[in-house]
Amino acid sequence: MYDVTTWRHSTDRAVTCYTDIGAVINDIIADIKKRQPKQSSKPGAVIHIPPGDYPLKTRVTVDVSYLTIRGDGHGFTSSSIRYNAGDTSGWHEIWPGGSRIRVENTDGENEAFLVARGGEPRLSSVVFDNFCLDGISFTPHQNSYENGKVGIRVDTANDAFRIERMGFVYLEHALIVRDADALSVHGNFIAECGSCVELIGSGQASKVTDNHIGAGYIGYSILAEGHQGLLIAGNNIFPRGKSLIHLRDTNRSSITANRLHGFYPGMLDTDGVNKENLVSGNHFRREPEPWGPMQPYDNGKDDLYGVIHLRGDGNMVTGNLFAYDVPPDKIKPSGARPAMIRVAGGFNNHVSNNSVVSNVPVNAVVLDESTQGTKVIDSATAAQFVSHATDYTFRATP
Amino acid sequence: MYDVTTWRHSTDRAVTCYTDIGAVINDIIADIKKRQPKQSSKPGAVIHIPPGDYPLKTRVTVDVSYLTIRGDGHGFTSSSIRYNAGDTSGWHEIWPGGSRIRVENTDGENEAFLVARGGEPRLSSVVFDNFCLDGISFTPHQNSYENGKVGIRVDTANDAFRIERMGFVYLEHALIVRDADALSVHGNFIAECGSCVELIGSGQASKVTDNHIGAGYIGYSILAEGHQGLLIAGNNIFPRGKSLIHLRDTNRSSITANRLHGFYPGMLDTDGVNKENLVSGNHFRREPEPWGPMQPYDNGKDDLYGVIHLRGDGNMVTGNLFAYDVPPDKIKPSGARPAMIRVAGGFNNHVSNNSVVSNVPVNAVVLDESTQGTKVIDSATAAQFVSHATDYTFRATP
Amino acid sequence: MYDVTTWRHSTDRAVTCYTDIGAVINDIIADIKKRQPKQSSKPGAVIHIPPGDYPLKTRVTVDVSYLTIRGDGHGFTSSSIRYNAGDTSGWHEIWPGGSRIRVENTDGENEAFLVARGGEPRLSSVVFDNFCLDGISFTPHQNSYENGKVGIRVDTANDAFRIERMGFVYLEHALIVRDADALSVHGNFIAECGSCVELIGSGQASKVTDNHIGAGYIGYSILAEGHQGLLIAGNNIFPRGKSLIHLRDTNRSSITANRLHGFYPGMLDTDGVNKENLVSGNHFRREPEPWGPMQPYDNGKDDLYGVIHLRGDGNMVTGNLFAYDVPPDKIKPSGARPAMIRVAGGFNNHVSNNSVVSNVPVNAVVLDESTQGTKVIDSATAAQFVSHATDYTFRATP
Repeated sequence: MYDVTTWRHSTDRAVTCYTDIGAVINDIIADIKKRQPKQSSKPGAVIHIPPGDYPLKTRVTVDVSYLTIRGDGHGFTSSSIRYNAGDTSGWHEIWPGGSRIRVENTDGENEAFLVARGGEPRLSSVVFDNFCLDGISFTPHQNSYENGKVGIRVDTANDAFRIERMGFVYLEHALIVRDADALSVHGNFIAECGSCVELIGSGQASKVTDNHIGAGYIGYSILAEGHQGLLIAGNNIFPRGKSLIHLRDTNRSSITANRLHGFYPGMLDTDGVNKENLVSGNHFRREPEPWGPMQPYDNGKDDLYGVIHLRGDGNMVTGNLFAYDVPPDKIKPSGARPAMIRVAGGFNNHVSNNSVVSNVPVNAVVLDESTQGTKVIDSATAAQFVSHATDYTFRATP
Repeated sequence: MYDVTTWRHSTDRAVTCYTDIGAVINDIIADIKKRQPKQSSKPGAVIHIPPGDYPLKTRVTVDVSYLTIRGDGHGFTSSSIRYNAGDTSGWHEIWPGGSRIRVENTDGENEAFLVARGGEPRLSSVVFDNFCLDGISFTPHQNSYENGKVGIRVDTANDAFRIERMGFVYLEHALIVRDADALSVHGNFIAECGSCVELIGSGQASKVTDNHIGAGYIGYSILAEGHQGLLIAGNNIFPRGKSLIHLRDTNRSSITANRLHGFYPGMLDTDGVNKENLVSGNHFRREPEPWGPMQPYDNGKDDLYGVIHLRGDGNMVTGNLFAYDVPPDKIKPSGARPAMIRVAGGFNNHVSNNSVVSNVPVNAVVLDESTQGTKVIDSATAAQFVSHATDYTFRATP
Repeated sequence: MYDVTTWRHSTDRAVTCYTDIGAVINDIIADIKKRQPKQSSKPGAVIHIPPGDYPLKTRVTVDVSYLTIRGDGHGFTSSSIRYNAGDTSGWHEIWPGGSRIRVENTDGENEAFLVARGGEPRLSSVVFDNFCLDGISFTPHQNSYENGKVGIRVDTANDAFRIERMGFVYLEHALIVRDADALSVHGNFIAECGSCVELIGSGQASKVTDNHIGAGYIGYSILAEGHQGLLIAGNNIFPRGKSLIHLRDTNRSSITANRLHGFYPGMLDTDGVNKENLVSGNHFRREPEPWGPMQPYDNGKDDLYGVIHLRGDGNMVTGNLFAYDVPPDKIKPSGARPAMIRVAGGFNNHVSNNSVVSNVPVNAVVLDESTQGTKVIDSATAAQFVSHATDYTFRATP
């Protein structure tokens, strides 16, 4: 059990958590390794971050298993609202709080935390719990979502990690995890970041559940790349997000019981080939950007792209409700009929029992020419269905 | 980091957590404000409540962001069973436990905790975690669910709050939150209270997930008023509850993957106009009150009201299972065919792919005369469907 | 608040958490009972287990309510991979970690923790939180899943218990709970155990949510016996598991929004009579065992048994995706058409809106001769449907 506020740096007593919490945590990790030298007993430790404001100048490198870094408050507040609010001199407070790390690397690195280790076995059971990673500001302006900063990057294969109850704000990338096995991302508040959760490389048997997540117009709220058996469930995913959920070469995963609210087409987007995923019981709310400061921006996609843009084989899209409300003059291209579910490629997708509510006539389901064997059942009236393909099955919603 | 058991009151040393934990916490909050005077750094604090019995005589007012009040045990036990058990002199214990606050206001207020602040910004990231709020007794008798007591009332706009792992028992109102943004109510045990979770005024992007919840016959297990994008998912909602989930002027929200068990009609109830909500994948178990002490009470509604009583437009009700088992002599009005899903008003609701199991013939779907454009698909056999409206679509379950 | 590392045993100072954490915790519980003698105030306590390796020689008996036993890390790592890895002398670490209890009973008992109490009331609000129970090894070989060890056995009726954020590994039985009311099993990592979660006897209003779970070929990942209103939601259930979810005489429960990955038939299995359960929005991935060391083993069932084997009445199976990929030479019996949903017995089951993707022709739905009144709707093409019964309704997937 280590406390960053009482730890005395092993070599430089001028370094404290109030000058550089990154250097302090690295020094603690070195102490853990020194105290747990035996292969046969390395239980790890807890590094505790009490409530406070802590600058991080040096990237932390986590290369031990069973390490929990735990704070006492996710500390989210909206920096975006404040930066766009004008005079805030009369405000009670102006920054996020809780156990708050100000990500201010002066070491030439981008990450607050890098988790990586070579050799065997993979790192296991590293936990980030209940503190705040604050990127502080964007450049060149506060609505860019850009500053190059990464909250946590896990860069080698890993097992049974947990990221839970954290707060992330004003980072270009909140959380990047490469090659995850049985990862749990649960109960976090990840907002006003360029991208929020990026699961890259490969992965299996992981879950992203019960989070509040909302990325910027430049990035992903949730990206899954090369995953199998990922469960994305019970999340409240709010704007903006270039895409809210993005699958890339991801198979046999579930997107279920989520609430999604987006300002652009491609709320659920895909690339590569994505097979046998289940998209069920989700609520898709699409409306235009209502907030002046962000109205100059979008993700560059038009309404023919689809609220769901699906590429891949054997996916099932069922039991979803689409609530679309975009004024005709904001629909792109002008005069187009917006697509809700666009099957852009692949074989044997199954689209059944979906419902659409819209302020304008829409195409509930659109099949691209290259698609084959799609079944569209009770998901579009005859007037709401367009197929550019010849090989498909359609039963109209009565 | 504050501990209520070691805090010395700033002005009156006779006040301790064992005489009035409310006065102690107020004194701690005053200390936090004194120690964090600068707008530029107000990280908040943790107030820790170790296991113990603590009387609260004075209402706590929380008016700082990033405050976590955390105990070490939700401490629920059934007071209802005990109060109705007769002689309990031989029992091991008779009260709830854990980090237990006895709500015994002598200050003329109703609330144990009031969270409110004027000015800008909204309060952010206040957390209530893992303690017990016990209202102790009801009046005039122990099965009334009435005592005027409120566990937590959040009365001004708020962002990123968390209510988690708490226990609430024997309060007339457990938790009331006004004007919530991105609230999380997760992992709580809220039972034997008049009403459990009341989200009032307005709200957006919030979630009520993975809770055990069960209100009294006088109140709401979950009430959502004026909300957008609320996610109610993965809850086990048990009896009783005048209604188990009640929507009022709530739009584009999701009720999904919940288990609901109720003793009266109107388990999922609505008033006002509720638009484009998704009700999917829920289990609705309806049976009569089996327990003698509570059999004198109900919510006054009859079986024509519907297990789901839906008012509003463009809602989707799909993939739900209704398990109805009420002896004919307990069905009201006498001889009536109970309704499962009653669409009582509104346009373009979509009812599809629901299943009903019942001990008596029921009307699986009933459309009121004023409804228009409802689609009823695979949710009722021809014999189970009644429409008093003329504008609808019906495809019978084969 | 007790800390196992600083507790001095009341009678034998040679006993410490490093010689026998079981004896230490029993001594602490005795102290709690001594300090809380009054029926009117028994708030319980927290027993804290810091990160470390702790042998348990003596079974702990928990017989007080409101006790939280909390560690600082679930500490899972794969022992199965290590035991099958050959030379691991160069590995960084070889054992699980975190707050790790080595289950090494020398007292003739099987359990690390037994929770039981006679008299009234039932035990309430006992919490196991965030530590690791490691059974260390199996016998006679490391792939047997057998050693007779039980992590936690709750053996008398109980209310409002929580098992959360725990790690369980290499136990024959991780968690057994008898007669649960409003139990929550949430956020755990339970893997490489013979059986993982066994809810036996009876139970109501409980939930198993958001866990990582994977049993051995000899046992259950999740077993529910005699339950009502159980909610199994949002779990990532990975191989192996004789069955991944097994219902026995369990009624009005929900299995929803889970991801299931299995290597044998009967991934969702049932016996006895199971009524009015909802199986919705789940992803079933079935493939053969890919890993050499485990390929000698299976659960003895053939592919006619069904990925789902359903016995009971009035159940609803809807919105599930089956992704089946077994090479023809591994299908049993040879040349058989594998069954996805087999209704093996019972009345009035409702199977609707399911989708199947398979590498070989399969029977999406099979009805046994004894079944009556099953409705099969949009869940199988005509070629994928087999009924040995005469009383059923079938509408083919178009």
